[in-house]
Amino acid sequence: MWFDFVFFLSQPLSCSWVFLWEKGYQETDSVVSSVTTKVKGVTMTNTSALGSRIWDVADYVIPPQEKNAVFVMTNMIFTLNQSQSHCPELPDDNTECNNNSSCVPGYVSTHSNGIQTGACIPYNSSIKTCEVFAWCPVEDDYHIPNPAFLQGAENFTILVKNNIWYPKFNFSKRNILPTFSSSYLKNCIHDAQTDPFCPIFRLGKIVEAAGQNFQEMAVEGGVMGLQINWDCNLDRAASHCVPKYSFRRLDNKDSANTISPGYNFRFAKYYKDSSGIETRTLIKAYGIRLDIIVFGKAGKFDVIPTMINIGSGLALFGVATVLCDIVVLYCMKKRYFYREKKYKYVEDYELGTSET
Amino acid sequence: MWFDFVFFLSQPLSCSWVFLWEKGYQETDSVVSSVTTKVKGVTMTNTSALGSRIWDVADYVIPPQEKNAVFVMTNMIFTLNQSQSHCPELPDDNTECNNNSSCVPGYVSTHSNGIQTGACIPYNSSIKTCEVFAWCPVEDDYHIPNPAFLQGAENFTILVKNNIWYPKFNFSKRNILPTFSSSYLKNCIHDAQTDPFCPIFRLGKIVEAAGQNFQEMAVEGGVMGLQINWDCNLDRAASHCVPKYSFRRLDNKDSANTISPGYNFRFAKYYKDSSGIETRTLIKAYGIRLDIIVFGKAGKFDVIPTMINIGSGLALFGVATVLCDIVVLYCMKKRYFYREKKYKYVEDYELGTSET
Amino acid sequence: MWFDFVFFLSQPLSCSWVFLWEKGYQETDSVVSSVTTKVKGVTMTNTSALGSRIWDVADYVIPPQEKNAVFVMTNMIFTLNQSQSHCPELPDDNTECNNNSSCVPGYVSTHSNGIQTGACIPYNSSIKTCEVFAWCPVEDDYHIPNPAFLQGAENFTILVKNNIWYPKFNFSKRNILPTFSSSYLKNCIHDAQTDPFCPIFRLGKIVEAAGQNFQEMAVEGGVMGLQINWDCNLDRAASHCVPKYSFRRLDNKDSANTISPGYNFRFAKYYKDSSGIETRTLIKAYGIRLDIIVFGKAGKFDVIPTMINIGSGLALFGVATVLCDIVVLYCMKKRYFYREKKYKYVEDYELGTSET
Repeated sequence: MWFDFVFFLSQPLSCSWVFLWEKGYQETDSVVSSVTTKVKGVTMTNTSALGSRIWDVADYVIPPQEKNAVFVMTNMIFTLNQSQSHCPELPDDNTECNNNSSCVPGYVSTHSNGIQTGACIPYNSSIKTCEVFAWCPVEDDYHIPNPAFLQGAENFTILVKNNIWYPKFNFSKRNILPTFSSSYLKNCIHDAQTDPFCPIFRLGKIVEAAGQNFQEMAVEGGVMGLQINWDCNLDRAASHCVPKYSFRRLDNKDSANTISPGYNFRFAKYYKDSSGIETRTLIKAYGIRLDIIVFGKAGKFDVIPTMINIGSGLALFGVATVLCDIVVLYCMKKRYFYREKKYKYVEDYELGTSET
Repeated sequence: MWFDFVFFLSQPLSCSWVFLWEKGYQETDSVVSSVTTKVKGVTMTNTSALGSRIWDVADYVIPPQEKNAVFVMTNMIFTLNQSQSHCPELPDDNTECNNNSSCVPGYVSTHSNGIQTGACIPYNSSIKTCEVFAWCPVEDDYHIPNPAFLQGAENFTILVKNNIWYPKFNFSKRNILPTFSSSYLKNCIHDAQTDPFCPIFRLGKIVEAAGQNFQEMAVEGGVMGLQINWDCNLDRAASHCVPKYSFRRLDNKDSANTISPGYNFRFAKYYKDSSGIETRTLIKAYGIRLDIIVFGKAGKFDVIPTMINIGSGLALFGVATVLCDIVVLYCMKKRYFYREKKYKYVEDYELGTSET
Repeated sequence: MWFDFVFFLSQPLSCSWVFLWEKGYQETDSVVSSVTTKVKGVTMTNTSALGSRIWDVADYVIPPQEKNAVFVMTNMIFTLNQSQSHCPELPDDNTECNNNSSCVPGYVSTHSNGIQTGACIPYNSSIKTCEVFAWCPVEDDYHIPNPAFLQGAENFTILVKNNIWYPKFNFSKRNILPTFSSSYLKNCIHDAQTDPFCPIFRLGKIVEAAGQNFQEMAVEGGVMGLQINWDCNLDRAASHCVPKYSFRRLDNKDSANTISPGYNFRFAKYYKDSSGIETRTLIKAYGIRLDIIVFGKAGKFDVIPTMINIGSGLALFGVATVLCDIVVLYCMKKRYFYREKKYKYVEDYELGTSET
């Protein structure tokens, strides 16, 4: 029957394809990983408020260590010498006032810097705002420094150390490959073309590889993903199992995205002055958070998935018989003849007719 | 044969069900996500030790930024002006003493605040405890402030920005939907009924949505899970792919849970006084840690899973033939007749009997 | 036919094995988990630079709280009283100089501590290096304290609180088992043999259980994995669903690993002196980061996977028919006879031959 022929040809082909291409003969396992990072680089700024100032790792990496992530501050708004006291609130629609009657004592909203005292006092020579009890003076973040305060962050480097483990196969490897020499690691910078396995990344290059402009991103901050893909076929030599790096901006930066763009947070450094009064420097830190995302699957020959897949592959052959039957018995011109051949009526037997 | 009929009816039904309901025709992918959070809100406290004091984001979010999580301090025990010196240990079964012979110089246990000097000194007018070299005075955390110190945390809001990506389909989306207006985002508060897509959450509402009492939880702290589910059928329009938020308390709070309930940790702010001696304020911070858990699967039509699933579905038809054979040949009254029909004995051939 | 017999015997066996051993009748779900940690312990150090000093949790856990991880400082290089000023760079191949002409004003490299001013000044009595504008004096990390500064960290304990949830089955459990008494939890220390379920771990024991030497690891730091496996068969009683703990060093420590071994990072404590000048203590912290990795799968009987697996299992029976046909029709000596039996030529019918 030519149906048989078509099915017997198509099925082994599709089965083999699934079996070989999708590696149906392999047991698979997901990666377990640990990541540590180390940022290097210094940069200098020169402003009227702070004078000349040098910034190093302990200044711009906040918090100093994180799991699978690192934050590098690239821009900031600092408010020096805040103390708990009374001062005028930042002017906006709700806080501008003409006299005390516009200000409600005890009022506080989501966007407040403090709690209103009920007084209306001058913010500057032209505007009066409600007085608040707060960390004073309150932060004025209307103007974000542009270009970014720590422009030099473009040249900072990040060493990413990544160890992976496939528990089922007890296979572990690190992204510092055994072929690296000590001097190579001291000086290399990751580059997709020339140094695809160097685990030291220049911050500016990461951002550019994701199709972004570093200096633009540095102003308002953002979240970058550094993806490390460890897909490995462990039926081959371990030296073929190498990381593939890729870069991606994880927070959408599009023109429509005008609401709370970028990435920033506030933190403070606390001091006590000589009279024991607590003061603080409030910092609104804009910067680049680098999430290191490790993923991958390893496959290795194993008898159980092989059997299961061969089994269900072979089961497909059974389909041919059934489909042929259906076609032959219900669709073809000569179907009556086939039915006659296919089915024997048992009643015949009981009537004594034993003819085949 | 009526067996055939039953099987031919039941199998397509069950197969189709699996195929359509479980979407056997779709390739699936798991979500890659990035989360950033921003807390807003201020609150005031008035205590004899600290006087009036305002608390803002830089004071109560510790550390200032985390990946996929945020901690908001709601209660605290602070120990002011600690310095490295000698003082009496906190009284308990092991540290209370009558005279120096009860105290072992150099002794330190898991629950110690410092290292014993061997002296037995008055803790207060009635109790004597072993002297320790420690950050003095030692913290006394027997009494947790109740109601919580930062009760006002109930009204703090958390903006959760979440970008997701399905790598296989190169589909990305953010939880700030394109339909939102800027003014909506400034003022909305998430509510399961009225604002199910607003990404700004009131801390008190999150806790209540998980069936907990905020003021109770604020006292000893706890861990809340904010789950964002991005299950998407990408065969439909992208606008149907929207996040589903749900809330859950992740640390079991039950009556039996009397051992180390809630969530707290200690941190310190370090100062140097005018003579260069280091002092610190030790803070035992109780609060709510919000873990943002993003999960989801996207499915999209693809020819390979479709073929595989159709194949194995059809393979089931083959079962009918086999089951019918078994029933007919081994179970039915007329089995001998069927066997006679089914099997031809090849010996006949060799004996020259060629009758069919 | 004996083929039939072999296949009918082998297939049910292999199918049943897959079905029962691999639990083909169960729906499975992956674990959702929350982890909190609490470190306890104090230790004392005695150095010329710092004098006697006690170290407690607030001093050595950095940052004070993390999600699914905790860092315990075991060794450190501290640089006291740094301020923004000019000082000689640390000597190395690039920074040693004889006169000002060797130093380039404004030069800064990845390994610099600051920005060169162009002057060449004495580093000590024998060496001159380029002057830099930096946090001065610059850190000298050539010599790592050995033995580790906080040797006593070996006896620190870590309480790990872990709640898990299987969403599909709405099954949740915590690693503090209901059978624990309060006094047991106060005093137990995890031990694979005697206390396999105690959730309090001695840092030294964790490291040893992973086959490492604590005091060696404490010097340069490292990353440890504490794995909690919650594989559960929910067809059995909930009390059988218990965590299995295992320990693993996640950063490879091998002889070849001489480049940037261990785990360290830098952070600073900022002070203001009485004249308002900011100074800081820079700390290069070496230590043990403990990643808590929770994984597991729960299975529970469900009708859909059962049907699917029975179906595809039964489908395999169809294979017997097809394989037998192939063997009989193409391979056996008597194949011509079988073919004659198998195929009826329909042409006969058209010729009027209706004989069976």
